[in-house]
Amino acid sequence: MVFNSIKKIDMLHINSESIDKMESRYRANLFNTISGFKSANLIGTADKSGSTNLAIFNSVIHIGANPPYLGFILRPTTVDRHTYENIKETGVYTFNHVHESFIEKAHQTSAKYEKNVSEFEACGFEEEYLNKFSAPFVKESKIKLGMQFEEEHLIKSNDTILIVGKVLNAYLDENFVSVDGSVDLTKAGTVTISGLYEYLKPTKLNKFGYAKP
Amino acid sequence: MVFNSIKKIDMLHINSESIDKMESRYRANLFNTISGFKSANLIGTADKSGSTNLAIFNSVIHIGANPPYLGFILRPTTVDRHTYENIKETGVYTFNHVHESFIEKAHQTSAKYEKNVSEFEACGFEEEYLNKFSAPFVKESKIKLGMQFEEEHLIKSNDTILIVGKVLNAYLDENFVSVDGSVDLTKAGTVTISGLYEYLKPTKLNKFGYAKP
Repeated sequence: MVFNSIKKIDMLHINSESIDKMESRYRANLFNTISGFKSANLIGTADKSGSTNLAIFNSVIHIGANPPYLGFILRPTTVDRHTYENIKETGVYTFNHVHESFIEKAHQTSAKYEKNVSEFEACGFEEEYLNKFSAPFVKESKIKLGMQFEEEHLIKSNDTILIVGKVLNAYLDENFVSVDGSVDLTKAGTVTISGLYEYLKPTKLNKFGYAKP
Repeated sequence: MVFNSIKKIDMLHINSESIDKMESRYRANLFNTISGFKSANLIGTADKSGSTNLAIFNSVIHIGANPPYLGFILRPTTVDRHTYENIKETGVYTFNHVHESFIEKAHQTSAKYEKNVSEFEACGFEEEYLNKFSAPFVKESKIKLGMQFEEEHLIKSNDTILIVGKVLNAYLDENFVSVDGSVDLTKAGTVTISGLYEYLKPTKLNKFGYAKP
């Protein structure tokens, strides 16, 4: 039993001791879900010779709006390695929102394909090249961003890397953009991810204004 | 018109030139939403004398599972300053999931209260102290994490900071944890955020397995 050492108060209490004793996959699932919901993006890259790579990431986050910067976390020793190598080689990459109609294909890009295999072809996505940007976009995506590498930070605690990039180009349907500039992600059919395996579709509860004391 | 310089292909194309020309709040809304859905956590802190602070963050992300690390982005020159100061002073803080029943109160914590005002009291949350952990938890939250500061990274592009911490304690209802260890966030009533102002409730589309080529 995983919860042997876990104390009950009115809620379940998991502490460092019980975390250490957890079975590895159980712990991975627990801590991949416990941070809350995540973004769902396919990152498209190419090496200098034009060989492409596509991989799903659930860690794309907002860093700043002026100029527009976005970040994401990668694990360069695993399946993310090709994405990292291509970004370092070319300086550019694309973010492509995962639409509810292709979550299964998008998830399949997380498989460990060999370097000479393009996940575009292996998982059934079409490469799209827009305005001479050298990194491939995903034709099926309804929101796509052309990114330029800016800086990287090695997280010493566990050797993961934060990649920060600048948004150079954004492509999306004009109908997705509200009058205040915000993108209506539900209208765009963009999904959210919980953990490593679950895909969900959000429904609006409420939208508030700028809060004042 | 904001879109004067924007070229139409089959999709709307926003480029660096049109980004520069955007009205500031419009651009903020656009790039706060365009990365996709975000997590929703209240971060609880206290200074050495025990004065508490509570603020909503939409940038909490998974960094690693073994040991469990989570990160978040903050802007230390603005409303996030008290959170940052308290974390640096005490080394500990809490993450508390935003439940659908209190999104309006949670959003109110984003207002710029003075240092001597606790958002717990101002916004109607109850402080909870568990197992001698010195940072305050949010009693109303159904999933809460006790965090220990590990490292920080200054993002030079725009002077934001990535804070990385280790999960020391987790409190949640046992019924939220699936047999594989993953937390069922929909069962927990946890919400997701789009941009700065919109709160949404996700519904499961599908859960896949570990993908293989």
